Amino acid sequence: MRPPLPSPSTTLSTPAPVPARTLARDLPTVPPGSVVRLQGWVHRRRELATVTFLVLRDRTGLAQVVVRPAVGQEMPGVPPEETTVEVTGTVTANPQAPGGVEVTGLGGAGPSDAGPSGAGPSGAGPLITPLTDAAETPPVELWRPALSAALPTVLDHAAVAWRHPAQKARWEVAAASLRGFRATLDAVGFTEICTPKLVGTATESGANVFPVDYFGRPAYLAQSPQFYKQQMVGVFERVYEVGPVFRAEPHDTVRHLAEYRSLDVELGFVRDHRDVLAVLRDVLAGMADAVRASGAAERLGVEVPQIPAEFPVLHFADALELVGAPSDEPDLAPEHERALGEWARAEHGSDFVAVEGYPMAKRPFYTHPEPTPHRSGSDAGEARWSNSFDLLFRGLELVTGGQRLHRYADYVAAIEARGEDPASYASYLEAFRHGMPPHGGFAIGLERWVARLVGAANVREVTPFPRDLHRLQP
Amino acid sequence: MRPPLPSPSTTLSTPAPVPARTLARDLPTVPPGSVVRLQGWVHRRRELATVTFLVLRDRTGLAQVVVRPAVGQEMPGVPPEETTVEVTGTVTANPQAPGGVEVTGLGGAGPSDAGPSGAGPSGAGPLITPLTDAAETPPVELWRPALSAALPTVLDHAAVAWRHPAQKARWEVAAASLRGFRATLDAVGFTEICTPKLVGTATESGANVFPVDYFGRPAYLAQSPQFYKQQMVGVFERVYEVGPVFRAEPHDTVRHLAEYRSLDVELGFVRDHRDVLAVLRDVLAGMADAVRASGAAERLGVEVPQIPAEFPVLHFADALELVGAPSDEPDLAPEHERALGEWARAEHGSDFVAVEGYPMAKRPFYTHPEPTPHRSGSDAGEARWSNSFDLLFRGLELVTGGQRLHRYADYVAAIEARGEDPASYASYLEAFRHGMPPHGGFAIGLERWVARLVGAANVREVTPFPRDLHRLQP
Repeated sequence: MRPPLPSPSTTLSTPAPVPARTLARDLPTVPPGSVVRLQGWVHRRRELATVTFLVLRDRTGLAQVVVRPAVGQEMPGVPPEETTVEVTGTVTANPQAPGGVEVTGLGGAGPSDAGPSGAGPSGAGPLITPLTDAAETPPVELWRPALSAALPTVLDHAAVAWRHPAQKARWEVAAASLRGFRATLDAVGFTEICTPKLVGTATESGANVFPVDYFGRPAYLAQSPQFYKQQMVGVFERVYEVGPVFRAEPHDTVRHLAEYRSLDVELGFVRDHRDVLAVLRDVLAGMADAVRASGAAERLGVEVPQIPAEFPVLHFADALELVGAPSDEPDLAPEHERALGEWARAEHGSDFVAVEGYPMAKRPFYTHPEPTPHRSGSDAGEARWSNSFDLLFRGLELVTGGQRLHRYADYVAAIEARGEDPASYASYLEAFRHGMPPHGGFAIGLERWVARLVGAANVREVTPFPRDLHRLQP
Repeated sequence: MRPPLPSPSTTLSTPAPVPARTLARDLPTVPPGSVVRLQGWVHRRRELATVTFLVLRDRTGLAQVVVRPAVGQEMPGVPPEETTVEVTGTVTANPQAPGGVEVTGLGGAGPSDAGPSGAGPSGAGPLITPLTDAAETPPVELWRPALSAALPTVLDHAAVAWRHPAQKARWEVAAASLRGFRATLDAVGFTEICTPKLVGTATESGANVFPVDYFGRPAYLAQSPQFYKQQMVGVFERVYEVGPVFRAEPHDTVRHLAEYRSLDVELGFVRDHRDVLAVLRDVLAGMADAVRASGAAERLGVEVPQIPAEFPVLHFADALELVGAPSDEPDLAPEHERALGEWARAEHGSDFVAVEGYPMAKRPFYTHPEPTPHRSGSDAGEARWSNSFDLLFRGLELVTGGQRLHRYADYVAAIEARGEDPASYASYLEAFRHGMPPHGGFAIGLERWVARLVGAANVREVTPFPRDLHRLQP
């Protein structure tokens, strides 16, 4: 019989035991023989006859702790997996251990494969102090190299399932992407903005909005910061925002969420959408670099794409021709996008291809038309095509962007052409009555980018708390 | 009579005129005699008999442009204020001009006070090309050094009013603060998280939540990321989030908004709330440094506070005594906060003072009690005080934080003690059943921080699109 687990420490305010905490990542750099203090979770506990292996997990990685009884003593207890613990022991070289080191008894036990030993001069094995009560058995096996649980299980138990190192690394890709996004834009004069998510009118499309009871009045959740970021171009010229957007998306697909993170950019004094595309290129390069630097992609075994110096660009009309679609198709079908992705890879060695000139009919009212029609003939003279683009990443749409209208009169005409009343856009249009520069922008869906990067089939696999038609918990 | 304004350029895709755009900020570094191309807004137009002064505003500042007729020609037209324009002209030294330089005709006119002259060899004054139709007269006078409009006017016309350099600088303080916040935390192993704003239960307090119609089911807007950031401590140990939080605040005060930006931090493996306070200190120092580096505070003429190496800390019981309040007061009144602010300044030369040990009765259920009562006597043995704190900045509460409970059993007891059912917190509590470290955190209200820093009496003065009981527009 083993002795009971040591009782949790109750007074955390007492002076911290020396030495300062060592992170798992740094353990291989500590000289063998040093006494270290680790803190983390019991990732794996393997209790053999004469030795217990404890793999400790902290935010930086894993560390192996070897527990043996002191001479003449019983085997010290090790709390069950996921219990948070503090371990004080001696760094001992062991080529078999991960990183070439493990933590043993305070007196400096031999390596774990050198036969039974363990207790130091003080007679103590590594000192293991639980920081909470013993953890219950997790709903998913976190210590296995791959998380084998089904998606609904992972989602239902997100707080625990995301502790798995592979799951955690997926979000680290997201966090690194945000860092790279902001660093790129901060370096070229962009200002971060925060725009309201509660709006008074369901403007942009009217469909798929969530109604809110706002002090007894109707309000809506913003579907995008589009109108606000344009207005702020009038103030700061170059703006970005990272924030939630809300779509009451009635379809249950692997690519859509009811709430997702939109990485929005808008900039003034552009010549046309090509200037916007050049900024998008730099932003994605910055995001890819940050993901690479984080090490998370490497741990996941995924390849971070090389961003070409310039994206290959195809006009929508030429793209239709290239994929053999009828020239009057209003949009690209998924199989067309896939074919264009293959073309970009084969012809340009690029994971990315931009398609510009999407038909005006499929774009929002604020879209700037193509000033000189791409092809003459029956289309000449009409604004059939637009100065907008989609960026395809590995054959899937990742980013939508383009140039916007910037003249007040053009807005009035565009809104009226859709049978709407410009008066209902009054506060948005005020910016244009008082001088706006030619401008454009784009929005990247964070979850879609990460899913594509790590090869997840479903955006729900890369965000801990997705929201959709069916899911509002946890 | 003046000639009509040049018509707006219609084909923005034509090759950009050389040279590349020069920003107003960089103009003084350009050798006199160089031809530059500026882009921006007509900030101020002053039409005198023989010369028109055009002050151009871009994202970096102001530049003076001097327009004179070519010999024998009429005065070239300059579009009205707020019209976006491109100006091509010659950099000319003029000690009277802002920055010591101005832009004159293409041939290199003399300084603006050297008498009439103007046209260069080509006969052209500075080339001024409007980028839109002539702007309408703005609802506020943007060119005056101070924005004199009343707050409701500024709010109603945010897209235009925020173009005023002083207003713009206020948001630059906010943007710099966000940069400093993230940089500080990124450097010490924190992971940025994005947690859902649509939640299934109105948990934390039940009061002041906004109901949402979620595909026909009830949902709510998150009042804080508290539960989620704690769960993510179980994954990443150290997390932060910058995001909107929503409070259906029924009171119309100068300090509250229905939607504001919360800068949330949570970290594991703390000894107690003092470790949390140390991180808060570093975060505010990073924010203050970033604001200083942005130059926005200097332009506003406001003093960025020095952050002491350690905040002075007072226990709540001692704070009551210090301000002469009865020892059974459950909270600090505004005049007490002011008195403590004065005390901190006088005794510690600090704009900040932390008050710790707030009564448990006034804190949320997840608050960790003070393990050893601060004073013996009738309170000994009861958990009257907590391991939580408020940070006062210049005598006003800026940040609330503290240590949280980390044991499952303690949560069950705390929830039951409030007469609630732990089952309604099941997904939140799952994290604690499976091992959580001692942890704590804090939240900074961005608007409140900026308002305090720039000396704005009302948080509505520092955010372009505030939301409150009465305001949902623009």
